Amino acid sequence: MAYVNENYLNVSESYLFSTIAAKIRGYLEENPEAPLIRLGIGDVTLPLPACVLEALHQATEEMGRKETFKGYGPEQGYEFLRECIAEGDYAARGIVMDASEIFVSDGSKCDTGNIQEIFGEGNTIAIPDPVYPVYVDTNVMAGKAGKRLENGRYSGIMYIECNRETGFKPVIPEGRADIVYLCYPNNPTGTVLDKKELAVWVDYALKNKVVLLYDAAYEAYISDNTIPRSIYEIDGARECAIEFKSFSKTAGFTGLRCAYTVIPKDLVAYTRKGDAVKLHKLWNRRQSTKFNGVPYITQKAAASLYTEQGRREIGERIRYYMGNARLIRSSLLQSGYEVFGGEHAPYVWLKTRDGMSSWEFFDHLLQNLQIAGTPGSGFGTNGEGYFRLTGFGSSENTLEAARRLTGGKSI
Amino acid sequence: MAYVNENYLNVSESYLFSTIAAKIRGYLEENPEAPLIRLGIGDVTLPLPACVLEALHQATEEMGRKETFKGYGPEQGYEFLRECIAEGDYAARGIVMDASEIFVSDGSKCDTGNIQEIFGEGNTIAIPDPVYPVYVDTNVMAGKAGKRLENGRYSGIMYIECNRETGFKPVIPEGRADIVYLCYPNNPTGTVLDKKELAVWVDYALKNKVVLLYDAAYEAYISDNTIPRSIYEIDGARECAIEFKSFSKTAGFTGLRCAYTVIPKDLVAYTRKGDAVKLHKLWNRRQSTKFNGVPYITQKAAASLYTEQGRREIGERIRYYMGNARLIRSSLLQSGYEVFGGEHAPYVWLKTRDGMSSWEFFDHLLQNLQIAGTPGSGFGTNGEGYFRLTGFGSSENTLEAARRLTGGKSI
Repeated sequence: MAYVNENYLNVSESYLFSTIAAKIRGYLEENPEAPLIRLGIGDVTLPLPACVLEALHQATEEMGRKETFKGYGPEQGYEFLRECIAEGDYAARGIVMDASEIFVSDGSKCDTGNIQEIFGEGNTIAIPDPVYPVYVDTNVMAGKAGKRLENGRYSGIMYIECNRETGFKPVIPEGRADIVYLCYPNNPTGTVLDKKELAVWVDYALKNKVVLLYDAAYEAYISDNTIPRSIYEIDGARECAIEFKSFSKTAGFTGLRCAYTVIPKDLVAYTRKGDAVKLHKLWNRRQSTKFNGVPYITQKAAASLYTEQGRREIGERIRYYMGNARLIRSSLLQSGYEVFGGEHAPYVWLKTRDGMSSWEFFDHLLQNLQIAGTPGSGFGTNGEGYFRLTGFGSSENTLEAARRLTGGKSI
Repeated sequence: MAYVNENYLNVSESYLFSTIAAKIRGYLEENPEAPLIRLGIGDVTLPLPACVLEALHQATEEMGRKETFKGYGPEQGYEFLRECIAEGDYAARGIVMDASEIFVSDGSKCDTGNIQEIFGEGNTIAIPDPVYPVYVDTNVMAGKAGKRLENGRYSGIMYIECNRETGFKPVIPEGRADIVYLCYPNNPTGTVLDKKELAVWVDYALKNKVVLLYDAAYEAYISDNTIPRSIYEIDGARECAIEFKSFSKTAGFTGLRCAYTVIPKDLVAYTRKGDAVKLHKLWNRRQSTKFNGVPYITQKAAASLYTEQGRREIGERIRYYMGNARLIRSSLLQSGYEVFGGEHAPYVWLKTRDGMSSWEFFDHLLQNLQIAGTPGSGFGTNGEGYFRLTGFGSSENTLEAARRLTGGKSI
């Protein structure tokens, strides 16, 4: 008789996006003419850059000729792309990172979800709240999170409280942690850590032999040099951090799927006996055994982003989305809202007014201004009373949303 | 202090393909003019079909226009591809399978590796020997295989002995099993199970509430209607089997990455308390949380295979590789070898002569006939004294290899 993994039954069912969709559907059925603007979206909307299209067409041609056809590729990614990344995203910023320390994958969701596999039982896992739900859920599914409590939290997770008092930034935990998830620029709050703030975490990790899992999927949205775009800009991070980066939100690869994870060869964790084991070796084993690499044509597409044209086309996209985010931010500030993020991230995080819950605010915004966003409570306990808007809409719609937010109608 | 998953340290390091590569390199350094023929390869060599190239180009164009750009897709696969599969691979063969029971993925290696996650601790896992190593290794990494023994086996795995006496077919285990991996047509032995033989397994599974994990990645190589191309051709399989299929070896997608896994909604496993849980729901949770779908362009490419042109182009490829496999098989038989497979599978499995070990035969074949193959011992204890050749080479090379195998030079 086959037994299921009962930890799966312990995962909180998230109805966040399905509830949002149902509410919007209901509203539009009653108000078919309503000029709805969707600012809840976490997905890109601009088409793929020209350099990417060209690379895809060219690589497709190669796959159609016997002489240039590519079958199974290396599970870790083709050398040509790993070299581009090492040079373009690290060496160019003064960071030493060997191409062999970079693992190309089909997405940061997969990588941040799978990474817990290489860690054992008995680690205390610290996760900020509010947070991207994948970090928590994948630990729950692996039986590493303890029991589900009434408030939706888990008994075995150490929550790092991010709230108004901390400026939605993480504070070093008081108890013992072994593994810490961090995401900066942050989803959902749009906040960032400057070099000094991040250095505090690196110092803490080095002192306590903690491994930091650093999700930097939105680093391209940073425009201020004092804010690190990679955790490896901080001295010592090679010995304590794994970094996740993605082409999803830079070049619009959400539907094309390419990302990468960096595990420096200096980074170790320990056996129960105290022997150090290189995490690079374990992740390499994981990827070699359970993954068969990213399509050749996708990797050629990603490599095209490291040309002058590629950089320019990414820059255009970032400027477009950030223009939207800044406009939302300034409109909200002008209307007297308390706002976080939206300066170095496509996400704007606002405090609701009049003690409204996140869902009350959702309804309010939908019905009075015909704007759809995302309730902050969907990202954790500390998100209650907050709300997320994003810069991923079209500039026309965002402009109109800004008009409504600041305009005649009061919200 | 972060702890590693020590189960990873328990995985047998496989040096099979790296040792093969090193031996070939050494031989070619000493004999740079040697006309080496590689028949060890498990990867396709023919380029992508024309219908796939066309679909890729067209879908790439769609991704370049704002109106038709696709961002995040459904984690389970686009409806258009799931419908093609349900119709083309199931309904057309009289099997009822709803599109929602099909999960599109980036490869059967990933799916057969990840599937163990939805099963709990305490299951007895039965795995044939010889076997594709991923089934064993992924269970070892999850701590579900017990201790590594001196012979390379694991104390917690129930091995299904496939050998000369059983015709390299699996025999129902005597002890209790909960989960059984089967792969037919088989890699590495090329053997198949007919409907009656497979029905024995389905009956066994239904009686004992066993879940069968059926890897049918090579089903397209079957040319005899009495041999099932899907386990769901057997009555009752919807209640006991998960099926894995792939576009890798049919349409040459090894470098493009697309496969699918079928989990009927009738299929359950149990909690420790004895409650039935639908595995469809658990896998859906797994994929939704840890996977972000297959690229839109790849799914359009896969859908193009369900056209008349697609079927024809796949047929041409299968005939080409099977022509090679049959030629290898007949040459070996003509030379007096005992041979398995090569009739409904691209793999030919031969017994070495004169008590040679698999590696001795490798050296012998390389040095005397300049043919490279794969030692059977790399696939498990029962592979010792056997050897795998494949039909994935070019027809010219395979013809020349056949000449050498049957010709003047004795081996």
